[in-house]
Amino acid sequence: MTTVELRSDNAAGVAPQVLAAVAAANTGSALGYGGDDVTARLEQRVREVFEHPTARVFPVVTGTAANALALSAMCPPWGAVLCHAGAHILTNEANATAMFGGGVLMHGVPGEAGRLSADGVRAALDAVWWGDNHVSQPAVVSLTQATEQGTLYPVAEVAAVAAVAAGRGMRVHLDGARFANAVAALGCTPADLTWRAGVSTVSLGAIKNGGLSAEAVVTFDDAVAAELYYRTKRAGQVSSKMRFQSAQLLAYLTDDLWLHLAGSSNRAMARLADGLTRLGAHLEDRPEANIAFVRADAATADRLRAAGLLFYDTAPGTIRLVTSWQTSDQDVDAALAAFADAL
Amino acid sequence: MTTVELRSDNAAGVAPQVLAAVAAANTGSALGYGGDDVTARLEQRVREVFEHPTARVFPVVTGTAANALALSAMCPPWGAVLCHAGAHILTNEANATAMFGGGVLMHGVPGEAGRLSADGVRAALDAVWWGDNHVSQPAVVSLTQATEQGTLYPVAEVAAVAAVAAGRGMRVHLDGARFANAVAALGCTPADLTWRAGVSTVSLGAIKNGGLSAEAVVTFDDAVAAELYYRTKRAGQVSSKMRFQSAQLLAYLTDDLWLHLAGSSNRAMARLADGLTRLGAHLEDRPEANIAFVRADAATADRLRAAGLLFYDTAPGTIRLVTSWQTSDQDVDAALAAFADAL
Amino acid sequence: MTTVELRSDNAAGVAPQVLAAVAAANTGSALGYGGDDVTARLEQRVREVFEHPTARVFPVVTGTAANALALSAMCPPWGAVLCHAGAHILTNEANATAMFGGGVLMHGVPGEAGRLSADGVRAALDAVWWGDNHVSQPAVVSLTQATEQGTLYPVAEVAAVAAVAAGRGMRVHLDGARFANAVAALGCTPADLTWRAGVSTVSLGAIKNGGLSAEAVVTFDDAVAAELYYRTKRAGQVSSKMRFQSAQLLAYLTDDLWLHLAGSSNRAMARLADGLTRLGAHLEDRPEANIAFVRADAATADRLRAAGLLFYDTAPGTIRLVTSWQTSDQDVDAALAAFADAL
Amino acid sequence: MTTVELRSDNAAGVAPQVLAAVAAANTGSALGYGGDDVTARLEQRVREVFEHPTARVFPVVTGTAANALALSAMCPPWGAVLCHAGAHILTNEANATAMFGGGVLMHGVPGEAGRLSADGVRAALDAVWWGDNHVSQPAVVSLTQATEQGTLYPVAEVAAVAAVAAGRGMRVHLDGARFANAVAALGCTPADLTWRAGVSTVSLGAIKNGGLSAEAVVTFDDAVAAELYYRTKRAGQVSSKMRFQSAQLLAYLTDDLWLHLAGSSNRAMARLADGLTRLGAHLEDRPEANIAFVRADAATADRLRAAGLLFYDTAPGTIRLVTSWQTSDQDVDAALAAFADAL
Repeated sequence: MTTVELRSDNAAGVAPQVLAAVAAANTGSALGYGGDDVTARLEQRVREVFEHPTARVFPVVTGTAANALALSAMCPPWGAVLCHAGAHILTNEANATAMFGGGVLMHGVPGEAGRLSADGVRAALDAVWWGDNHVSQPAVVSLTQATEQGTLYPVAEVAAVAAVAAGRGMRVHLDGARFANAVAALGCTPADLTWRAGVSTVSLGAIKNGGLSAEAVVTFDDAVAAELYYRTKRAGQVSSKMRFQSAQLLAYLTDDLWLHLAGSSNRAMARLADGLTRLGAHLEDRPEANIAFVRADAATADRLRAAGLLFYDTAPGTIRLVTSWQTSDQDVDAALAAFADAL
Repeated sequence: MTTVELRSDNAAGVAPQVLAAVAAANTGSALGYGGDDVTARLEQRVREVFEHPTARVFPVVTGTAANALALSAMCPPWGAVLCHAGAHILTNEANATAMFGGGVLMHGVPGEAGRLSADGVRAALDAVWWGDNHVSQPAVVSLTQATEQGTLYPVAEVAAVAAVAAGRGMRVHLDGARFANAVAALGCTPADLTWRAGVSTVSLGAIKNGGLSAEAVVTFDDAVAAELYYRTKRAGQVSSKMRFQSAQLLAYLTDDLWLHLAGSSNRAMARLADGLTRLGAHLEDRPEANIAFVRADAATADRLRAAGLLFYDTAPGTIRLVTSWQTSDQDVDAALAAFADAL
Repeated sequence: MTTVELRSDNAAGVAPQVLAAVAAANTGSALGYGGDDVTARLEQRVREVFEHPTARVFPVVTGTAANALALSAMCPPWGAVLCHAGAHILTNEANATAMFGGGVLMHGVPGEAGRLSADGVRAALDAVWWGDNHVSQPAVVSLTQATEQGTLYPVAEVAAVAAVAAGRGMRVHLDGARFANAVAALGCTPADLTWRAGVSTVSLGAIKNGGLSAEAVVTFDDAVAAELYYRTKRAGQVSSKMRFQSAQLLAYLTDDLWLHLAGSSNRAMARLADGLTRLGAHLEDRPEANIAFVRADAATADRLRAAGLLFYDTAPGTIRLVTSWQTSDQDVDAALAAFADAL
Repeated sequence: MTTVELRSDNAAGVAPQVLAAVAAANTGSALGYGGDDVTARLEQRVREVFEHPTARVFPVVTGTAANALALSAMCPPWGAVLCHAGAHILTNEANATAMFGGGVLMHGVPGEAGRLSADGVRAALDAVWWGDNHVSQPAVVSLTQATEQGTLYPVAEVAAVAAVAAGRGMRVHLDGARFANAVAALGCTPADLTWRAGVSTVSLGAIKNGGLSAEAVVTFDDAVAAELYYRTKRAGQVSSKMRFQSAQLLAYLTDDLWLHLAGSSNRAMARLADGLTRLGAHLEDRPEANIAFVRADAATADRLRAAGLLFYDTAPGTIRLVTSWQTSDQDVDAALAAFADAL
């Protein structure tokens, strides 16, 4: 029996181009802590990719670090971060943002299909006692793109939320653990999906999409960048041999590798979702990126596992399936065969 | 003109065995966050190397993270960490321990040749108002092994300091950014130099000694381990693709690679120090590991730089030279030739 | 027009006995920071009142400080505090617990009439990924007694929730900003309502009930007390002239003053609620202590204000009325007269 | 045997005017948390006393809170506070500033007679690696006025230090636990000693000088005030019945009460120091405010204690004597008589 890996995109391996870039960076000696040529080229590349002449990039090592450091640089200790009630930063990061941010409050807001809406954000903000020191003052809206539900924010929706936030003097953060999947699926430019829509700062994921050990914070906001320079270091996130972190990200953003990998992952999910629909399976929300939630009772889930599928139960009667850049058509077809038997 | 890299051991490259191990780990899929086989084998290997059946290892990404997380798990927020006045944790880590530790006080104590002495520690502790809540209560003594001055603590000296600490109910931490250099130079076992001498927890450096992006906290103390499990995650230090971090450390600790690399670095420094002494140069302290401080006025330093030597000024009239696992005999001889001309 | 103060019990004055005790403490000199006789007598008195031989008391200055310091001593930084979704510690204390606790997560759980139920707590805890470092681990259940809704937990309900918490190894905290109102209304002993029911630590309010500037944390848990000794000091909550803080609390707990004052406040509310009910007003929940929420549209609220009533709107169409130890029968009757006109 | 209290000025009682003001404030009801008339009048009075039209005052409850909150509002988490190596904020406040400030580093600098000098500060700042994220960046110089050694900074010296700080873009904080003693002794205006000399923010002590339970942060810096509004609340330092805190400070600053009390304390010390000098006692530094350090071996100290003197040993062979607003001529003469016998 061969197994099909659908637990998480972080269970996948590293793209060969990323690994090759690490090996290629291992030549001569180089200043540590980012004072090397590869890191300089990375920043240049980020500016090209995001079409922003002063964007700054801070390589870090995990998505949790990227999110928590970005948010702590965007929000005062007495501030609050508005996010979806199911956002990873609220439910899966052990309150890291509060630790790095000196007690920042995470304020979860419900929303359909894993998304906040402009109206939902407005309503939440209208209920705040602004300027009252009894209450953590909202300072950031954080959107997850693609969402934990496998859905997407179109450019116009990002802009609509950002406009509400700007009206309250708040910044917008993007948890882009799967930003590549979003860009690939939406077919827009990174610039359109971020700063042109009003986004201040992005947690730019790479590890889930063929990366090795480097994620990044990309910010278009000089004040945030000034803080991140110090905050990343004291958080133990500034690698001494930074060239090997930067090389990963540089390869990732070169020749559209990131979009090719994400496109492959998205296509695997589309093939899987289509097949599941044909089989009569019930999918929560239409998968727009590389994640699907499928109804499956315990017995069905057991049969799927017995057939070699690796996946997580996320709630009683629901399983989550995640494709990655490595998920092949054969993997998908094997999964569909297992579903055909199990359903 | 060829350059000779003597700025820092973190300017060196990655040992081929470490890089090969990363590539070798890139097969199939694996659970993230340390739930993989490589990480399990690493813990087993650490227990063998340290001859301790319940030692725990927590891979992290920087020495700052290793130190600050270890210390925050060893010291309550109202506690103090005693360390040498020139210790890296006090002077070069942006007060990371205070951030992670909720306001832990770093208490620098002077000491000859970069070392704390048992008497110095005792005197410092005798001056404390124990049990008085106006005063941060010392809870940890942190020793740097090898020290930032390039000197070593013999096993007996570690044990002597640890005995003083134990008499006050304190734990002992080792900042082992260059622990391999110490073990290689002292010719003792890792166990003798740590838990058998009374050490609770070690920041085990690897990056300066041929590593890529993985350091580790090794602890022999179950209570510290229980905290580190949570503290590492919320600090954003638990890599999702942990197998690639663990693979580096596993290769590093296999077949004595770490000691071979450190031995090479130490021998390069010994050759350099001998040559400098023959040339009449003045060395602060006798280099016992891979760092030397040499008197050189500004004009001399300029001549050395012009000759291709890369190094740092650490104080007016003093330069620091650091060898690495990559420093060759030719590098040393070239450096000595430059000194011969410049002096 | 005379005004009737119904905004908050903290808008009331200080009971004459409390003020007299402060004046009486102003004799001779005394050691600062709690090393005085009055503070020693206070601890003795707390042990008598709570019938607990080793209870400890830590006078602090605000309810926010009492709650946040108690919780930070009861919960590790990676822990979570379960409380009612409308609890003051979650909605009105500017995330103080997260700041003092190094990033503790506040986890709000819904519940009828401002109360958590044992079943609600059990369900919330059953949904937790215990032992998973991605998730803040619940370590404390905090109950507000009397609740922010003006309702009470009977002794059996406190015990039921505490039993659920104990089953998960969690501690129970009581936010007792209005603890006196609860004891007076329930007619039970302080011991029955706290440690005998499984409560570890109480934020013992006094200021809202005739106090001046002293609240206290009372703990029956030695481990919590050991932390509070240091945590209160470094939070700037250990008054140098502590005797004047302790004198307030000692007077408050002497000759049942606290219960007389709270009883008076409760009776004023009962008179008010009865009258309102007779007038056909709609009260949310039956007031069990000194708080009532009454439906009143904007026009009605305006008429009430015009008649001299001082109160807060808490939601569109709802106003909150709070009686205090100073609320007289005349005040209540004046308020009822205003309602009779306005409704 | 009568005792003479010379341990600390916080062992003294409360000035009658302060106590009377508390009693007088106990009339009617008033909005909590500073929304009352007394607090408004206090701010007006502070502006008059300091001759500054936009000065802001934040009543808090302890000097530790005043210092730590002021400094956390003046310094980013990755910043450092330069202070005298013996400053209370470094040695006696349990690292409160690091807790409130998210890991701010306290950087002690030596200096004669308890004072920093402009040259000493300049030298310390010249040694900093500015703009290097490995190093906590100095952002504040904190001066203690009067110093813990009982000495004073003349106006010109405050200005000289402040000019050095300003040259580095740093703010100046005054720990004014005994600010009244300094103003009374120097005969200058509060404005000259603070904002006109370049001071941003003052911890204005009152408790040691006849106060009860209120200290204050006074700031001339709008950015600091904006942070303090939120920081004081979440630190649990905003009293709900604030009018009673503000009343103390208002009385203190009215009719020069604060200066009369401090003058009395200073004169008692001058009388004591003169007498001691005549008796041949050795005083460290000339007492300029209300503190003296006197050489006394253990046997002498025992005889003094036996004679009824209350004081602290501060180092082997040295005792500290502190006068207060309550120290009478008879007290001083009794102390001198005891010294005459003991020496």
